[in-house]
Amino acid sequence: RSLKFGGSATTKFVVSDDPAVKEGFGTPSLNLKFSGNLRKDYEDGKNVDYVFGTNAGGSDLTLRIQDAYLSYSILPSNDVTKPYLYVYVGQQKKIFGLEATASEEYKPTINGAQFTKALSLDERDIGLVLSGDLFPHNDYGFSKYRVPAIAYSIGVVNGSGPNKADDNDNKDVFARVAFNAPVDYNDFLRGLTLGVSGYWGVKTATATRTSTTTVNVPNATPPPATISVTTNTTDTTLSQKGDKNRYGGDLSYVNTPVGFTLEYVRGEDPSLSKEKIKNGTITTPSTFRSVKSEGITFTLFYNFGEQFQKSYKEQTRYGDWYPQTIQPFLRFDRFDPDLDAEDDRKDIYTIGFNWFFAPTTKLQLNYNIVSGQIPKAQKNNEFLAQFQYGF
Amino acid sequence: RSLKFGGSATTKFVVSDDPAVKEGFGTPSLNLKFSGNLRKDYEDGKNVDYVFGTNAGGSDLTLRIQDAYLSYSILPSNDVTKPYLYVYVGQQKKIFGLEATASEEYKPTINGAQFTKALSLDERDIGLVLSGDLFPHNDYGFSKYRVPAIAYSIGVVNGSGPNKADDNDNKDVFARVAFNAPVDYNDFLRGLTLGVSGYWGVKTATATRTSTTTVNVPNATPPPATISVTTNTTDTTLSQKGDKNRYGGDLSYVNTPVGFTLEYVRGEDPSLSKEKIKNGTITTPSTFRSVKSEGITFTLFYNFGEQFQKSYKEQTRYGDWYPQTIQPFLRFDRFDPDLDAEDDRKDIYTIGFNWFFAPTTKLQLNYNIVSGQIPKAQKNNEFLAQFQYGF
Amino acid sequence: RSLKFGGSATTKFVVSDDPAVKEGFGTPSLNLKFSGNLRKDYEDGKNVDYVFGTNAGGSDLTLRIQDAYLSYSILPSNDVTKPYLYVYVGQQKKIFGLEATASEEYKPTINGAQFTKALSLDERDIGLVLSGDLFPHNDYGFSKYRVPAIAYSIGVVNGSGPNKADDNDNKDVFARVAFNAPVDYNDFLRGLTLGVSGYWGVKTATATRTSTTTVNVPNATPPPATISVTTNTTDTTLSQKGDKNRYGGDLSYVNTPVGFTLEYVRGEDPSLSKEKIKNGTITTPSTFRSVKSEGITFTLFYNFGEQFQKSYKEQTRYGDWYPQTIQPFLRFDRFDPDLDAEDDRKDIYTIGFNWFFAPTTKLQLNYNIVSGQIPKAQKNNEFLAQFQYGF
Repeated sequence: RSLKFGGSATTKFVVSDDPAVKEGFGTPSLNLKFSGNLRKDYEDGKNVDYVFGTNAGGSDLTLRIQDAYLSYSILPSNDVTKPYLYVYVGQQKKIFGLEATASEEYKPTINGAQFTKALSLDERDIGLVLSGDLFPHNDYGFSKYRVPAIAYSIGVVNGSGPNKADDNDNKDVFARVAFNAPVDYNDFLRGLTLGVSGYWGVKTATATRTSTTTVNVPNATPPPATISVTTNTTDTTLSQKGDKNRYGGDLSYVNTPVGFTLEYVRGEDPSLSKEKIKNGTITTPSTFRSVKSEGITFTLFYNFGEQFQKSYKEQTRYGDWYPQTIQPFLRFDRFDPDLDAEDDRKDIYTIGFNWFFAPTTKLQLNYNIVSGQIPKAQKNNEFLAQFQYGF
Repeated sequence: RSLKFGGSATTKFVVSDDPAVKEGFGTPSLNLKFSGNLRKDYEDGKNVDYVFGTNAGGSDLTLRIQDAYLSYSILPSNDVTKPYLYVYVGQQKKIFGLEATASEEYKPTINGAQFTKALSLDERDIGLVLSGDLFPHNDYGFSKYRVPAIAYSIGVVNGSGPNKADDNDNKDVFARVAFNAPVDYNDFLRGLTLGVSGYWGVKTATATRTSTTTVNVPNATPPPATISVTTNTTDTTLSQKGDKNRYGGDLSYVNTPVGFTLEYVRGEDPSLSKEKIKNGTITTPSTFRSVKSEGITFTLFYNFGEQFQKSYKEQTRYGDWYPQTIQPFLRFDRFDPDLDAEDDRKDIYTIGFNWFFAPTTKLQLNYNIVSGQIPKAQKNNEFLAQFQYGF
Repeated sequence: RSLKFGGSATTKFVVSDDPAVKEGFGTPSLNLKFSGNLRKDYEDGKNVDYVFGTNAGGSDLTLRIQDAYLSYSILPSNDVTKPYLYVYVGQQKKIFGLEATASEEYKPTINGAQFTKALSLDERDIGLVLSGDLFPHNDYGFSKYRVPAIAYSIGVVNGSGPNKADDNDNKDVFARVAFNAPVDYNDFLRGLTLGVSGYWGVKTATATRTSTTTVNVPNATPPPATISVTTNTTDTTLSQKGDKNRYGGDLSYVNTPVGFTLEYVRGEDPSLSKEKIKNGTITTPSTFRSVKSEGITFTLFYNFGEQFQKSYKEQTRYGDWYPQTIQPFLRFDRFDPDLDAEDDRKDIYTIGFNWFFAPTTKLQLNYNIVSGQIPKAQKNNEFLAQFQYGF
C-alpha cells in the first residue's frame, strides 16, 4: 500500500499604506498532506482511506495538525455512471459555499474573502461528514469527465475549530446542495454551478465582569483631602449561549477563456458586552444580542495560455513540456460585520494577475483597493506578491 | 539505505457524565516515526540504526520530537539461536512494566492505566538504555518464532521527561527483568511472561513562598477606623530534593482465544506544601514528606477472528485479504495517589470492544464505570469511541 | 519529479562547571529537509527548484519552518566551464563568512562560534539572495571537481529573523565575495579561500519607560508618620532606530591532512537604556548609543582515515564499505560584546575530537576551557559529547 505525500508552500512580499504593516517579505506558509489506503475493496471500490496533514500556523508559526480523517466509500466508487457517497470522520474542512471550501492552491486571490475568516467558515473542525452526488453525466469523448447533476454534503461537527475539544454539549450541523450543468465537456455551459449552503450551530458568547473594591483614605499632602485606593480587583467571566447560523448562496461558471464566481453569505452570532462593578454596585451592565453580518464576493477572471487552472494538478508530472497560463482577474469583496452598526462595512476591490509558470507553481500579484463605510484611517491600499508552489 | 516511515493517528468521540467534559469529537492525535540504518554490518548484524519520531501534543497540539535515538547491536543480531543485546542512546521510552512500555497501537484501552500517567512512567525520557535477552528458544516449525527465556533492560536517564534538559545533577536508573515461557509456538503456555521492574530516581519538589507586606492607614470613611493596605507581595520558590522510586510486578498471558495482563505498581514521590509569610512572620510553614502511591490493573480479553492483535503489523501489506478480529475485554484499573490520605482511591471498570477491520485499523469502544473512595461528584462514567489507524 | 528527503539529528551529553547547567543528556535536535524541482529546463539547466525544511526549536522544542525558498538558475547550470548564477526567494540562510553560513552537519564544534549567535548571523531570514561565481577552474582528472576563482553573494532581507514579518520598513542588505585558489584537485593550494563579507541594516532598539504615581497617606501605626502608597504603575515602550552593521574577513584552508579556518567579525548595534518616571519627573533618563562588538575564531584540524569531512555526504550510500575518519582539532574563539565596556570579553579554547564512524554519522567530543575578562564565576569549563547523524 502506497502512502501519498504532497503539500504546498508560499513566499510572499507585502507593501501596504497601513503604517502598522511593514513593507517586506511575509512569513512563509507550509501545508503538508499525507494520504493512503487502509482497506481496499477490489470489487466495488468501497475503500477505507485516510488523510492527515499539518500546517505551520498560529502566532508562533509552529507545525500543528490540519487534517486528520478516515473516509469510507459507502456506495461503489469504481463505476462512474453511478452516484457516489462517502463518509468522512475526523478533523477536516467544513463544506459551505465556494470561497471557504476551496483548498489553498485553488484560491485565485492571496487573501480569502473577508467573510470566510470573519465567520470562521475556512477553519477546520472535528466531526462526521457525508458527501455524495446524484445523476452523474459522463462525456465518453473525454474518458475521465464526470459531472453529477446534484452534489450534496451534510455534516455534524463540534463547532469549536481545529485541535480543540468541544466547548459546549451542542453539535453544529451544516448542509450544502449544488446543482451542476450536466453537460458534455465541450458544452458552453460546462462549469456552471448553483449552490445553497446552511450552517446551524450554537456559540457561547463571553465577556469579562470586573469587580473593583476601593477605600477612601486621608491624603497626607492635600488637596484632595481624601484619596481612593483600590484594595481589590477581580475579573470573572460571564457567558451566554446563542445561535451561530450562516446561510449562503453561490453561482459559479468556471470555463475557458472567461469565468466568474459569485457568493453571498449571511451570519448570526451571539454577543455579550463587558460588565463593571464598583464596591458592589453594577456601574456598567452586560447586555446580550444577536449580531447579524453579511458578505458578498464576485470574481471575474480571464484565462489564456495552454493550461487551465482546474486541471493543472492532474497533469503528468514527468514530462518536459511546461504549459503556461496567464490569468488576470477582478474581484469585489464586501463584508459588513454588524448590520445594526454604522460605519463598519468594508469593501475590497482587487486587481489581480496569476501566472502559472510551472505545473504546480504560480506567481500571484494582487493590488487591493480598500473602500466602504470604515474610517478613512483604515482605508489602506496594499500590494501583495506571492509565489505559491505545490509538490 | 532505505528510510522507513510509519505512524499512527486517532479520531475520537467522547460522552461523559462529567459536566466539565463536553460531549463531542475529541482532538486528533498523530505520531510519525522515521527509522533507518547508518552503518550496516553484513557479517554479524552489529548495525547502527536510528529512530526519530514526532507527535502532536501539549495543550496547543503542536508537533514536537517524541523519539530520537541511535541504536547499536552489541552482540550479533543475525543468529536467532544466540542472545541479543542492544544499546539505545537518546530520547526514548523507559522500560518499566507492561502498560507504560506498550506502544500506542498495542494498548487495548483508549485511556492508559491511571498509574502510567500519574507516575510519569509513559513519558519519554533522555538517556542510555541496554536491552538484551538470554537463552532464546526457537520453534523451527514457525521459522520466525523466537522467545528468550529471560529478557532484561537497564537504563540511565535524566528523569525530567521529554524535550527537557536535566533539572538536577542526579541521574535516574531503571531496570526490568522478564521471564518468558520458553516453549513452542503451539504450546498452551506460549505468551506467558512474569516481569519485575524498578525505577530509582530523585525529584525536586517545589512550592511557593508568598511574602506579603501590609500597612495600616486611617480610613477616611470609618468604620473601621483603620484599614490594611497591601504594599508588596513577593512569590519565591522553595525546593527540596527527595526520592522518586517505583516498583512493579506484572504477569501476562497473551494467547488465543483468551489472554490477560495483571500489573501492580508502587510509587514514592517527594512533596512540599506552600508557605505564607505576613509582615515577616511565617503564618503557614512549608512541610516536606514522601507520598506513597499504589496502582493495580487487570485486563481479561477474548479474541476471535482470523487475525491476532500481536502480529497484525507484520502481515504483508499488499494483499487484498483483510482478516478481521473481534476483541471484547474487561478491565479493572485502581489507583491510590496517596496511601496516607483517605477518599482518594479511584477505581475504573472498563467494558471494551476492539474491532480490527483492516490490517492496521481498529474501532475501539470503551465504557468506563468510575468508582472507589473519591467524592461522588468525581464518579463520572464515560463512553469513548475511537478509530485508530497505523500507516 | 522526485522529492528528496533528508535531515540531521543530534543526541548530546553535557558536563559543566556551571552549577546552573545540570549534568545530563541534552535535548535532542532535529532538522528535516525536503527539496524538489518545479520546472526543469533540459537544454540549459535553468531550473526552478524548491527547498523547505523544519527544525525543532524554541524553548518548547516545537517543530517550526526553518527553510522555505524557491531557486532559479539564471545562467545555464549544466556547463561546468561557465559561471553559475542563482536567485533564491524565501526564508533561507544569510551568506556571511564561514562559521554562520556552514550548515549544521559541517560545523566542527558542537557549539558555534560565539559571534554567530550574538550577532544573529546564524539565524534564517526572509528575502531574496543572488549567488554566483566567476572564472571556474575544472580539473578534468577529477571529473566533478570545479572551483570558481571568485564566488559572490548579495542579498536583501527583512532583517527580523525567521518566521516573522518585518518589524520596520527598512530592508537589510548583505554581500560576500570569496576568492578561491583556482588549482587542480591534487594541488597543495586546493581548498584555500579568502573571503570578505558585509551586512548593512537597521534595527529598532527598545527600552521600557516605567511611570509610577504615588500618594502619601498617614500611617495608622507610626513611625513613619506618613507612608507612600503606589496608586498607578504604567510601562510603555521607547524605541529608536539605529544601524545594525557587520563586517567580516575570513581565510580558510580545507585540505588533507591539515587545515584551518580563521574568521574576524566586527558588529555595530543600537542600544537604548531604561527610563524611570516618578510622579511626572524623569528620575532615570533613557540614553541611546551604538554598541561596537568584535569576534575572532581560529580552528586548526588534522584529518586521518579514509574519508574526508567535506565529501562524506556525497559518497554512495548503498555499499558495505564504511571508511572512518578521525579528526582532532583545536579552536580559539573570542568575543567582546561591547568594546567600550571592560570585563566582558570571553575566550573559549576548545580541544575537540570528531570520529566519523559511518558515512553520515559522527561522535563529537569537545572540552571547552573558558577564559578572558569575564568574572571568575562565569569561567565554567564544560565537556560536551554528541552523536550527530544525517539521513
